[in-house]
Amino acid sequence: MHEVSRQTQWEQRTELPLALASLVFLAMYAVLVLAQDLPAAWRDLCAAVMATAWALFAVDYGVRWRLGGQGLRFVRTHKLDSVVVLLPLLRPLRVVKVYEAVQRRRGQPRLSLHARVITYSGVTAVLLGFACALAVYDLERGAPGTDMHTFGDALWWACTTLTTVGYGDVVPVTTGGRLIAVGLMACGLALLGAVTGSFSSWLIQVFSRESGSPDGEEPPRS
Amino acid sequence: MHEVSRQTQWEQRTELPLALASLVFLAMYAVLVLAQDLPAAWRDLCAAVMATAWALFAVDYGVRWRLGGQGLRFVRTHKLDSVVVLLPLLRPLRVVKVYEAVQRRRGQPRLSLHARVITYSGVTAVLLGFACALAVYDLERGAPGTDMHTFGDALWWACTTLTTVGYGDVVPVTTGGRLIAVGLMACGLALLGAVTGSFSSWLIQVFSRESGSPDGEEPPRS
Amino acid sequence: MHEVSRQTQWEQRTELPLALASLVFLAMYAVLVLAQDLPAAWRDLCAAVMATAWALFAVDYGVRWRLGGQGLRFVRTHKLDSVVVLLPLLRPLRVVKVYEAVQRRRGQPRLSLHARVITYSGVTAVLLGFACALAVYDLERGAPGTDMHTFGDALWWACTTLTTVGYGDVVPVTTGGRLIAVGLMACGLALLGAVTGSFSSWLIQVFSRESGSPDGEEPPRS
Amino acid sequence: MHEVSRQTQWEQRTELPLALASLVFLAMYAVLVLAQDLPAAWRDLCAAVMATAWALFAVDYGVRWRLGGQGLRFVRTHKLDSVVVLLPLLRPLRVVKVYEAVQRRRGQPRLSLHARVITYSGVTAVLLGFACALAVYDLERGAPGTDMHTFGDALWWACTTLTTVGYGDVVPVTTGGRLIAVGLMACGLALLGAVTGSFSSWLIQVFSRESGSPDGEEPPRS
Repeated sequence: MHEVSRQTQWEQRTELPLALASLVFLAMYAVLVLAQDLPAAWRDLCAAVMATAWALFAVDYGVRWRLGGQGLRFVRTHKLDSVVVLLPLLRPLRVVKVYEAVQRRRGQPRLSLHARVITYSGVTAVLLGFACALAVYDLERGAPGTDMHTFGDALWWACTTLTTVGYGDVVPVTTGGRLIAVGLMACGLALLGAVTGSFSSWLIQVFSRESGSPDGEEPPRS
Repeated sequence: MHEVSRQTQWEQRTELPLALASLVFLAMYAVLVLAQDLPAAWRDLCAAVMATAWALFAVDYGVRWRLGGQGLRFVRTHKLDSVVVLLPLLRPLRVVKVYEAVQRRRGQPRLSLHARVITYSGVTAVLLGFACALAVYDLERGAPGTDMHTFGDALWWACTTLTTVGYGDVVPVTTGGRLIAVGLMACGLALLGAVTGSFSSWLIQVFSRESGSPDGEEPPRS
Repeated sequence: MHEVSRQTQWEQRTELPLALASLVFLAMYAVLVLAQDLPAAWRDLCAAVMATAWALFAVDYGVRWRLGGQGLRFVRTHKLDSVVVLLPLLRPLRVVKVYEAVQRRRGQPRLSLHARVITYSGVTAVLLGFACALAVYDLERGAPGTDMHTFGDALWWACTTLTTVGYGDVVPVTTGGRLIAVGLMACGLALLGAVTGSFSSWLIQVFSRESGSPDGEEPPRS
Repeated sequence: MHEVSRQTQWEQRTELPLALASLVFLAMYAVLVLAQDLPAAWRDLCAAVMATAWALFAVDYGVRWRLGGQGLRFVRTHKLDSVVVLLPLLRPLRVVKVYEAVQRRRGQPRLSLHARVITYSGVTAVLLGFACALAVYDLERGAPGTDMHTFGDALWWACTTLTTVGYGDVVPVTTGGRLIAVGLMACGLALLGAVTGSFSSWLIQVFSRESGSPDGEEPPRS
């Protein structure tokens, strides 16, 4: 809290621009995957923008490493950051920090803990599902024996996976697609945990507020 | 509490008639979807009843907006109400308010928090599943490659989706049907959260009651 | 507690014999469903035993109604009992009462709340899954287009349903089978809620015990 | 605590070597299952190593039985240990004890309860999923009508089962494979419970810390 002020200052200033950069990164990736018949020049432009965004992420990571002054321990204490630099499509996982940065600008946070958890889970799920659907669609397209013919199929698959419904009418068949799918399933589990967990604790809180105190139902009618 | 009395009065008086109107709306929609070979005159009658019910919802929304005196902020603070006016099939989601209105007429509520949560989840799930099954059946009927041949299939699909079992023997294949399905899956997640959450907090409560206040709960404030 | 003593006495005395009778009922039903090529005389015997067991359940229900002295309100306050008389295959749902009767005979209960919840959930799931697999197998056997060829398939289906995994390689296709399946899915949801809920509250308890009173839990009582 | 010191000493000394032995056991089993065209001599070597590891487990079990001095009650109070001796592939379930032994060597534990629960769940899920995938692949390989052609398919099946997604594109069809699958499904349920439970209790804790002591949590220490 005392010495890391330059680090937190840096993080507060860069959080929002980097979030925008990661949205641009995602959008460019979507264009590359979905608009196959784009002229080569445009495709090159998209790739260049993606590279630039990724360079920004790398620079940010480097600066924070420097400011942290922890050496190799930085990698261990910032696991999520390290993974996110290598796989920029996972940046939506940092949505919590972005949200907090936005809130700080607009004054104190208004939402209760449960509303925040559900908001985070929802936004993370939507962005991550979209990114995974793009990546899986790119890998599965044209694979022999696949049922994933359009990007709509890929989105449908991502939804059934994240909610752990798993119809199985559209499934990845390539090794790469399955690896991504396993990651998305794990996220689906965590999402389920977030929703049920926050609902559960909200209930407990409502209950303890409603029934006055200790450990029974409504106070005994005398 | 002090100035909104006219608003709450209006809500208390209209809640039950509007709930009836939404059941009639759902019934008419069911007739339109399921009884395809009804004479055109009857079908027109059903459509007219639906339009009337929807007009009632719109009038109610307008009156409450007026009484609230908040201008555009009303839309933000009454998100669920706004969505429900546009998509009247989602009105079952307001079951909580209806239930509270019924309870108010019959005296104080009898059910514990957990019983209420499970009742709400159950009624919401049944009504919403029925409405979604109708809408999806209407969209899927006759689509090429669909397995949803009868309304029974649609109901079966809705049950497997709400419980997140997801066999996949009957799945929507049209874009519209899939969009509705994604909404139903999200509701399935929330339903699961409600059931597990209320069960969990009920357990904690039973435990703290049973074991006196053993080693982990708060002492009774005297 | 004061006036219902004859009722509770009756319940304590009959609980175990009735539990045995319901196991016999289930076993006879299993014989009738699985041993199709049994001589008619044996099959009649099984049916007679089932009828006798059911008569015992009905007599017990009648006696308790009488002892309760509540008239028609008895049906409302004993919903589970009433359902179980009509559908004796659901008797495993009363396992909690049986367990408590057994514990009363052997002294005070030993298990913690969480162990009891998990035991109840497990035994209920096994018995109910077995009963549902029998009933569904009986209905599906020989239905056109079914994949449920052996009783092993039916058990496999029951397991995938109760855990909400839902592969969909074996699914009921008849209306009766699907109705039973929906009931089993709802039980799967409740089972999931029981497991996650008891795990969650056990964790909370362990945590508050372990960490003394770290930063937010109750102060130690001295 | 007082008399069992020799037992706990034994357990602390043998825990880590036995964990290594169980990893070797798993690795040898993997070699036997996956490398079908290995020369017979090498396969015999693998089998010998497996037998040795199993003998170590049996000796450890015997020694602890002896030291416990409880006679047959040992089997009842060490249910997990007894199962693990008979089915050495289930040894990953003991990962909690191994972890605690490692922590004891390196000083006090650093992780919070929730981090520990999620770590245990994760490591258990990965090891158990791998062991089950091996066993199911061994049983299913070449079975008529199976879709499990490669070990990758088996791993993919294990992932979809543990997360209760259950696509159903790859499912076991043999009786043995299905029995193992039912065990894995039960573990998936427990894993789900662990994740949602720990998330839920973490949320409650964060909440009570954040909001001071609002209306039902512990009183503030002055």
